[in-house]
Amino acid sequence: MAIPYRYYLPETEIPEKWYSLIPDMKNKPAPLLNPGTGQPLKAEELYPIFCEELAKQEVDNTTSYFDIPDEIREIYKVFRPSPFCRAYNLEKVLGTPAKIYYKYEGNNTSGSHKLNSSVAQAYYAKKQGITSLTTETGAGQWGTALSIACAYFNIPLTVYMVKVSYNQKPDRKNIIHTFGAEIIASPSDTTDAGRAILAADPNNNGSLGCAISEAVEKAVKTQNSRYVLGSVLNQVLLHQSVIGLESYSACEDLDVHPDIIIGCAGGGSNLGGLIAPFMRDKLRGNFGVISKDTRFVAVEPASCPSFTRGKFAYDFADTGHITPLAKMYTLGSTFIPSANHAGGLRYHGMSPILSQLYHDKEIEAVSYKQTDVFEAANVFAKAETILPAPESCHAIVKAIDEAKKCKETGEAKTILFGLTGTGFFDMKAYQSYLEGTMDDTVPTDEEIAKYVAELPSVPQS
Amino acid sequence: MAIPYRYYLPETEIPEKWYSLIPDMKNKPAPLLNPGTGQPLKAEELYPIFCEELAKQEVDNTTSYFDIPDEIREIYKVFRPSPFCRAYNLEKVLGTPAKIYYKYEGNNTSGSHKLNSSVAQAYYAKKQGITSLTTETGAGQWGTALSIACAYFNIPLTVYMVKVSYNQKPDRKNIIHTFGAEIIASPSDTTDAGRAILAADPNNNGSLGCAISEAVEKAVKTQNSRYVLGSVLNQVLLHQSVIGLESYSACEDLDVHPDIIIGCAGGGSNLGGLIAPFMRDKLRGNFGVISKDTRFVAVEPASCPSFTRGKFAYDFADTGHITPLAKMYTLGSTFIPSANHAGGLRYHGMSPILSQLYHDKEIEAVSYKQTDVFEAANVFAKAETILPAPESCHAIVKAIDEAKKCKETGEAKTILFGLTGTGFFDMKAYQSYLEGTMDDTVPTDEEIAKYVAELPSVPQS
Repeated sequence: MAIPYRYYLPETEIPEKWYSLIPDMKNKPAPLLNPGTGQPLKAEELYPIFCEELAKQEVDNTTSYFDIPDEIREIYKVFRPSPFCRAYNLEKVLGTPAKIYYKYEGNNTSGSHKLNSSVAQAYYAKKQGITSLTTETGAGQWGTALSIACAYFNIPLTVYMVKVSYNQKPDRKNIIHTFGAEIIASPSDTTDAGRAILAADPNNNGSLGCAISEAVEKAVKTQNSRYVLGSVLNQVLLHQSVIGLESYSACEDLDVHPDIIIGCAGGGSNLGGLIAPFMRDKLRGNFGVISKDTRFVAVEPASCPSFTRGKFAYDFADTGHITPLAKMYTLGSTFIPSANHAGGLRYHGMSPILSQLYHDKEIEAVSYKQTDVFEAANVFAKAETILPAPESCHAIVKAIDEAKKCKETGEAKTILFGLTGTGFFDMKAYQSYLEGTMDDTVPTDEEIAKYVAELPSVPQS
Repeated sequence: MAIPYRYYLPETEIPEKWYSLIPDMKNKPAPLLNPGTGQPLKAEELYPIFCEELAKQEVDNTTSYFDIPDEIREIYKVFRPSPFCRAYNLEKVLGTPAKIYYKYEGNNTSGSHKLNSSVAQAYYAKKQGITSLTTETGAGQWGTALSIACAYFNIPLTVYMVKVSYNQKPDRKNIIHTFGAEIIASPSDTTDAGRAILAADPNNNGSLGCAISEAVEKAVKTQNSRYVLGSVLNQVLLHQSVIGLESYSACEDLDVHPDIIIGCAGGGSNLGGLIAPFMRDKLRGNFGVISKDTRFVAVEPASCPSFTRGKFAYDFADTGHITPLAKMYTLGSTFIPSANHAGGLRYHGMSPILSQLYHDKEIEAVSYKQTDVFEAANVFAKAETILPAPESCHAIVKAIDEAKKCKETGEAKTILFGLTGTGFFDMKAYQSYLEGTMDDTVPTDEEIAKYVAELPSVPQS
């Protein structure tokens, strides 16, 4: 069939099961460890932090397909299937023979793919009778998506938002308030972790790691409350597999065969979700939709290069060191990236699943400086009439670079990337690009070495 | 078939022709008049202001269907067909037997339906070899949509933005800049009209009527430049008929028969577009999709009640009195509504087509106070996970009121409303609602009488 600008699967084709890559991986992601004992955590040990179903999903290494409960599919129907887009106009502007596709996840009020996991996590909490949830948010996308899900299921929510973002983005506060959640600038005086950080530095502007510490502490100390996280975890990549499963169905329907699959990577939720069924085929040697030469590419900011310059090791998920340890590419849990506008990509670590795949050379990684990322964003916006989120622009810049290479070589490669969201709340970033005041600082080798030297001393095998 | 949450027509079903209501109207909308002579304007007389094709569309009273050029349909494919949505969750929250549908036009970067006309107007300008365009914008939706269209066709654009909005909404400036347009706070010193207003009142905060004066003057005084407008005009309602045509096709496909069709009304572009083919059936007595009892309802803010409290008379389209005269429901061209957050509904007049239909009692009108509008917005957002624009919320509050009546009477009416856009750039409005600081001031009868008394003295028959 002729390939449309936007291809929508029918609502009946919303996936009925999530897919987990883990059973197909040669080397499984390393288990979460108890930081006190150094022993792998069982699901039950995670129950004080996570809802039971989610804890089970987190540690499950053997189930490939998980039924999506009807109640979650009902909400998915409000914003899914998301469009699978052919970037005809971008191709024309670039003058490339490449065929460029993107899966567009900004098509909902949350403005990003985060809603795929937030509705799942809120549902399981409601089902278990949990009476409040906590979380953290950096740029605000996850906080927004979770506040929408909690409004739908009527669960009180407290969001710890990194202070620098809280002050810079009053509209994020307002939207989260509109959906009925409480929002607190982190570090705050509402937790021990926050008070300790403020005592050491009253002007501390916060970090994602610090906000995680506060949110976990608040959940653990509040009766019948649990903590939820928007990325990094195996459960989150599982929920986000709907992105990849729909993309895969679209490729089948349209006879599209990606040569390169690209996603931005902060904690890994979007990239892990997008590549899931394609990587399944690669790991199983099942070629058809993809070929054995299909490449998988993670794109990260040069200012927070966990894949490209981090260490593959066990580390804390948070700055306050109250979470379990995860084995991942990490810059060290106290690493603070220089200011950049891709707030969703400023996490020190990376999904254990993706980290293992990268370590096993199943995926590649590349980093870009901020100015280059926004140059690509401006080209894309004008051609495709979509204003991308700064995070998403990391996938765009790599897609454009690959398309330009095709122009040089004359190859008509098929490029698929994840367009995770819209940049409506990031106009200051665009302004900074237009005014030429972007900061392209990247960490020095010495800085990275300093933080990585502080990794916890647990068995790192 | 089972009715999905979101129904997408296939891309091949994007309308191939726009539909004009005028030939089907018993009483045609009154022609634009030359304010100097009081005589109807011919298309040629509009050429200095409008592109030729658009001027012809403006004065055409006999053509029912206009071919949509392929180049415009190609861009429509980037964001159309827009979803036709069943508000299952809202129905559940309200506990109503009513079936609520909405046509959702916020599904593109411009965040509103305005893109439907802006791409058409930019296309005709490019085709004619026009080398620059000017326009005005209030809330910023039209300016955003036109900047996107002009970026696509590579036409330099100058946007006059009402000063109070320009200062309140820096993100609108940034997005319009990102798409490459120039933006000037109005009143400005770049035009005679602006300088005159500033001379009388250096602190003048601007109005839509004033920004129109400046944009028209700038176009007329710049070589090979033209002015474009986002609402009110017959040509704009023509382009916006794609909203109604797609909605009508969806109703046919899904066997949906609206009893009430509701739209917000500022200048009338959305309402006129949404109702077009349904009203066609009513005027032709062709019942099937609609019945002879189907109601058409315009909703406006109580602070700017042109339909419900204005006068049906010839008036200037602008404050500076340099535009042609249009016969419409008007509050007087110098009327300034009290501050409200629905910037797109603050125009003193109303589409001549809709004005005539209202005068002929083919459509109803109702107004709501701002606090009631935002109460409805909050209910809708939490149920449907979409954050509506303040303008769109006017349709929502009426739809909810009708659904509540159904709950009382037990009737399962079918309600269709236009959801014109998203409120991402209007979070200050939501904040104001949550903080209880909204201003519900409405004009007094004396105030309206004062402005209406200043209507121009032309034949008002």
